[in-house]
Amino acid sequence: MTASRQSAVPVAVIGASGYSGVELIRLLLQHEQAELCCLTSRQFAGRSLASVHPRFQGIENAGSLIFDPADPDIVARSGAEAVFLALPHGVSAEFARPLLDAGLRVIDLSDDFRVRDAEVYEAFHGKKHPAPDLLPLAVYGLPEFHAQEIRETRLVASPGCYPTSVLIPLIPLLQAGCIDPASLCVFSLSGVSGAGRKAEIPLLFVECNESLRAYGAPGHRHLAEIEQELSWAARRPVTVSFTPHLVPVTAGLVTTIYTEPTQGLPLDRIAQVYAEAYDAQPFVRVLGENAFPDSKHVLGSNFIDLGWIQDPRTGRLILFSAEDNLGKGAAGQAVQCLNLMFGLPETTGLLKI
Amino acid sequence: MTASRQSAVPVAVIGASGYSGVELIRLLLQHEQAELCCLTSRQFAGRSLASVHPRFQGIENAGSLIFDPADPDIVARSGAEAVFLALPHGVSAEFARPLLDAGLRVIDLSDDFRVRDAEVYEAFHGKKHPAPDLLPLAVYGLPEFHAQEIRETRLVASPGCYPTSVLIPLIPLLQAGCIDPASLCVFSLSGVSGAGRKAEIPLLFVECNESLRAYGAPGHRHLAEIEQELSWAARRPVTVSFTPHLVPVTAGLVTTIYTEPTQGLPLDRIAQVYAEAYDAQPFVRVLGENAFPDSKHVLGSNFIDLGWIQDPRTGRLILFSAEDNLGKGAAGQAVQCLNLMFGLPETTGLLKI
Amino acid sequence: MTASRQSAVPVAVIGASGYSGVELIRLLLQHEQAELCCLTSRQFAGRSLASVHPRFQGIENAGSLIFDPADPDIVARSGAEAVFLALPHGVSAEFARPLLDAGLRVIDLSDDFRVRDAEVYEAFHGKKHPAPDLLPLAVYGLPEFHAQEIRETRLVASPGCYPTSVLIPLIPLLQAGCIDPASLCVFSLSGVSGAGRKAEIPLLFVECNESLRAYGAPGHRHLAEIEQELSWAARRPVTVSFTPHLVPVTAGLVTTIYTEPTQGLPLDRIAQVYAEAYDAQPFVRVLGENAFPDSKHVLGSNFIDLGWIQDPRTGRLILFSAEDNLGKGAAGQAVQCLNLMFGLPETTGLLKI
Amino acid sequence: MTASRQSAVPVAVIGASGYSGVELIRLLLQHEQAELCCLTSRQFAGRSLASVHPRFQGIENAGSLIFDPADPDIVARSGAEAVFLALPHGVSAEFARPLLDAGLRVIDLSDDFRVRDAEVYEAFHGKKHPAPDLLPLAVYGLPEFHAQEIRETRLVASPGCYPTSVLIPLIPLLQAGCIDPASLCVFSLSGVSGAGRKAEIPLLFVECNESLRAYGAPGHRHLAEIEQELSWAARRPVTVSFTPHLVPVTAGLVTTIYTEPTQGLPLDRIAQVYAEAYDAQPFVRVLGENAFPDSKHVLGSNFIDLGWIQDPRTGRLILFSAEDNLGKGAAGQAVQCLNLMFGLPETTGLLKI
Repeated sequence: MTASRQSAVPVAVIGASGYSGVELIRLLLQHEQAELCCLTSRQFAGRSLASVHPRFQGIENAGSLIFDPADPDIVARSGAEAVFLALPHGVSAEFARPLLDAGLRVIDLSDDFRVRDAEVYEAFHGKKHPAPDLLPLAVYGLPEFHAQEIRETRLVASPGCYPTSVLIPLIPLLQAGCIDPASLCVFSLSGVSGAGRKAEIPLLFVECNESLRAYGAPGHRHLAEIEQELSWAARRPVTVSFTPHLVPVTAGLVTTIYTEPTQGLPLDRIAQVYAEAYDAQPFVRVLGENAFPDSKHVLGSNFIDLGWIQDPRTGRLILFSAEDNLGKGAAGQAVQCLNLMFGLPETTGLLKI
Repeated sequence: MTASRQSAVPVAVIGASGYSGVELIRLLLQHEQAELCCLTSRQFAGRSLASVHPRFQGIENAGSLIFDPADPDIVARSGAEAVFLALPHGVSAEFARPLLDAGLRVIDLSDDFRVRDAEVYEAFHGKKHPAPDLLPLAVYGLPEFHAQEIRETRLVASPGCYPTSVLIPLIPLLQAGCIDPASLCVFSLSGVSGAGRKAEIPLLFVECNESLRAYGAPGHRHLAEIEQELSWAARRPVTVSFTPHLVPVTAGLVTTIYTEPTQGLPLDRIAQVYAEAYDAQPFVRVLGENAFPDSKHVLGSNFIDLGWIQDPRTGRLILFSAEDNLGKGAAGQAVQCLNLMFGLPETTGLLKI
Repeated sequence: MTASRQSAVPVAVIGASGYSGVELIRLLLQHEQAELCCLTSRQFAGRSLASVHPRFQGIENAGSLIFDPADPDIVARSGAEAVFLALPHGVSAEFARPLLDAGLRVIDLSDDFRVRDAEVYEAFHGKKHPAPDLLPLAVYGLPEFHAQEIRETRLVASPGCYPTSVLIPLIPLLQAGCIDPASLCVFSLSGVSGAGRKAEIPLLFVECNESLRAYGAPGHRHLAEIEQELSWAARRPVTVSFTPHLVPVTAGLVTTIYTEPTQGLPLDRIAQVYAEAYDAQPFVRVLGENAFPDSKHVLGSNFIDLGWIQDPRTGRLILFSAEDNLGKGAAGQAVQCLNLMFGLPETTGLLKI
Repeated sequence: MTASRQSAVPVAVIGASGYSGVELIRLLLQHEQAELCCLTSRQFAGRSLASVHPRFQGIENAGSLIFDPADPDIVARSGAEAVFLALPHGVSAEFARPLLDAGLRVIDLSDDFRVRDAEVYEAFHGKKHPAPDLLPLAVYGLPEFHAQEIRETRLVASPGCYPTSVLIPLIPLLQAGCIDPASLCVFSLSGVSGAGRKAEIPLLFVECNESLRAYGAPGHRHLAEIEQELSWAARRPVTVSFTPHLVPVTAGLVTTIYTEPTQGLPLDRIAQVYAEAYDAQPFVRVLGENAFPDSKHVLGSNFIDLGWIQDPRTGRLILFSAEDNLGKGAAGQAVQCLNLMFGLPETTGLLKI
């Protein structure tokens, strides 16, 4: 828990057969200070990791891993000090409680604990929050803004892929008062892995290939956490227009945001604010003004790339971000939180590309 | 030129080796009232159509077609009454003049004649217009709004793929005063064929596959014609924010637009305005409120699909369109103009899918 | 049934929601001599065609089509004279009987009736044939070789996509004694639509994209019909090695075959044999020696392209074919059979591209 | 050069802007025992690595790298002890000589030094070998079979992507006399990155997407090295039929081979031979009988996966391999050779996934 920690952190992954779960395993197997000691999967219990995911065959430490049943008791007894929940939304809450009770630190990749207000959760999900008493424990796991709280908590709600791509470009500008919070129009493009590994017709190759389509607007579930964090940054309620689009790539997420700068904003202020916010942040790459991030440059990494453009014709400011929806948008960010929680250098295991 | 026309219209295609040119050939070979009598290509002069584009082998009428050199005199002598210019921007103007002089009707797929004001052309292209005296002749070839002028002109400037996808959803709402013209934030996704058949590194398979990237903002060349037509519809100057994105599909173009409805606009007014504008238009398919058009449903066709959403949280109205960038976004629309110019039913040759 | 037929043939499609079914509908809606009078779907009964498959919205004749339940009585009463069965393997047989009894002509796209010998069926499928008494009625619907029988039968077993791609290059060479029937090594690549529209994990976009994999060897179900027809052509039992591969395209199928030419075969004999076999066949495009067919040139069409290479180093002859697995490999070929069965020109409705 | 080496090996990459070059850089930046001290590029001299390849921005050690001109003297003075030549075929030879003279160890990724016989080179390339006197120095860099020679040489000819995929499944079976060397029919599928980063029309996204095509048969340049190594394994001249196919994936290469087992071969002999050959080899993953390797499981890695099937119907044996054409097929294998040449553990820097 301190910088002088001598041995690797034993960690578990619950729900390790989805795309985020597999990416977590990939990162953790290569993490110098973590040791994957337990994997669970309802579907694959009893089978070896390498038989379920052949890409792991021959990788050091992967050979001996066997999926356990998805049982909190088994995880608690495995010796894990931290556990990642890579479960469907709504299922995490029932696992979090017994694991927290057993003394583990929990990093949840679902959106069960991302919204602090149970009523907002209910408004966006259409059902009661499954464990409202745990909400006060949870910290929103965006390390660039909540590092100290992440270090100190036992329950991290790791942000979603869309929210990360929206919050990283917007929070510093809202905090610095550079833009009008009422002006935010957000468009995102996501690869198909963001929809999860579900046997559903709309996710078939033939349905997604050569297809471009908006979906989920205007009330996408992720809006709740986006607005919560933007409101925190702006110190007043912020409402956002947000439209995600599904495009035929396996991974990659690009977000483009139209905003209105505050009157009289000096042209070099944006660069300055981003430099202050992110020069010391290892995973935010500020490409600069008039730069267009390309999702292929962040694939497999925990980086998020930023660019922006000032449009003299309309007066608007256009912001761009690109991330790997399974990396900084899911598993990479969760591991970044793990590093913070256990006093490890923030980049441990995450600068491989 | 009248509905009683007995014989097929002889037509020529100049610059028939690019993606729009090939799509034009495909449509014209299947057009019941047009006869392809001349094809030109600088690069392929002397070769047969089927040897250059093997897909046309075995198709009736295609077997005997040979590429001529790209020479206006040859085209004029071919007997063609109409000619399509599928040439790079800036090159069309030099072909248009002699062909018009020779009495042919010209349908230009470049953007040389789309903007009526030579100064606006210069501002967006960074060079003088190559033939400003021809501009007054040109009609902007968007049949849904300029059908009568298209029927009567000898020079059609066929709209670009992005402009079509933006204008079809916006013009009726601006005309009806439903939305604030100052509020338009446009976001588009386009397949790679939209960039043309050019041997350039950024268009290679490996550079485009698994890649998502914005480009061209804030002053994309197509903005000039977009704003010209929107200003016409709104009866006052309209300025637009527009960001195109390149995504890994061969064809398909989706546009999403955020707008602000005028105060007190009844909820059913959008559906009503679209019905009035498009119920009689054969190629605009109004899918309805809360519908998300999918580009795969318009591939190979001249359709453009529309949907919209009213967002009670932000008060914004979100508009969606999907088209084939080579169809309604280029070759299909040009053939639709041909039909109008020669008094043919507007859908002739265009309802194949 | 004769060339003087005045009115369009009323046809039905049973199982119209899969990929072959949709392609059939597309072809039949544009067929000058067929009229789609009945569509059935277990899943979509009661819904309109355009609501289930939005691409058909706005297409003439498509607007009014409603899916009926998959009930043979309803089909029989619809007035259809011919019916296409686009059903899963094993299900067609139960529909074929009542429809034949009701006097309809049946074109089955499954493999229920392709193999004439019920024991061979059982060996490859691992279960008894569901309707062995109907087998003597069935004609293998490869028009290039069985046109006369197709004209005269009431039950056509339309060939599979892999078999078509293998039989077209091989049958003439076997018939002419040009190659050693014991030497046939076949490799195929198929687009994902060939696997059907099934909600299964291995067919998800993320599982297929950036993935190349062999499957189904050595005893793929389609081998039974391949060997039946090759044995017929060679006039002796032929056994074949066959390995299909799944690759990330929506449609397209390429087959490459290694063979050994018979001793002393003149170098120009292959071209000669193919010319004799296919010069009069409208859908087989013989590209020639040293030509490599590309699947993108046959997409959406009923063509199959052929090429070959004589390898002086090994003495082997290499054959290539490319087709659209949903076109000549499924729906296109079935419509070609319809044309023959009703005395229509063989290319009716099939030369669109 | 010995196991007790204390410091990282300084290495250079010449021609670092192509796809193999970039993959080499990626691997070397993460290699615990190598230090990238010099990169050259004709095109990008003077620019930083991160500006040319934005994916490397923010990666430790990458920030300070600047492309040097492609000048052997500069490389020699850089302190590099080993140099990778990621140059077009025919260009490597002119760089190899001065670098060898300057005392560097050279690992060449082109095919200039793979074939030991200058006459065979001439037969396949249609021109004289550019440096025949260097051929005796060169070792074919397939570590699974030539590890000791690789350790001792100063010039490694790193194998091509197709050859690796063919040799790994075949060499042990030929050495053990399990298969008839006259029976080899090879069929490969490759991703587009294998064709290099060249601005050519056939490599454009639109030309490759939704396209499947054979090419290069029957005398593909890589056949020369394939047959050289198979002949070595079989201890007699071996001639092979080989057909590569281009398919729309960025990376990945799958090879399927039909062979005839020698008479009376016990069914379990194949598994036994592969176990003997590869159990101790860290990068060959023998998936087993009736297993189909999938290229997506080896992407980004140096693994090659093997499977096989015995076909009782034809008596043939079918072999399968899958690799990343840029990994085990190019850059990964070259780094594996580096490890051997400098006495490092063979897997150093190569077990990341």
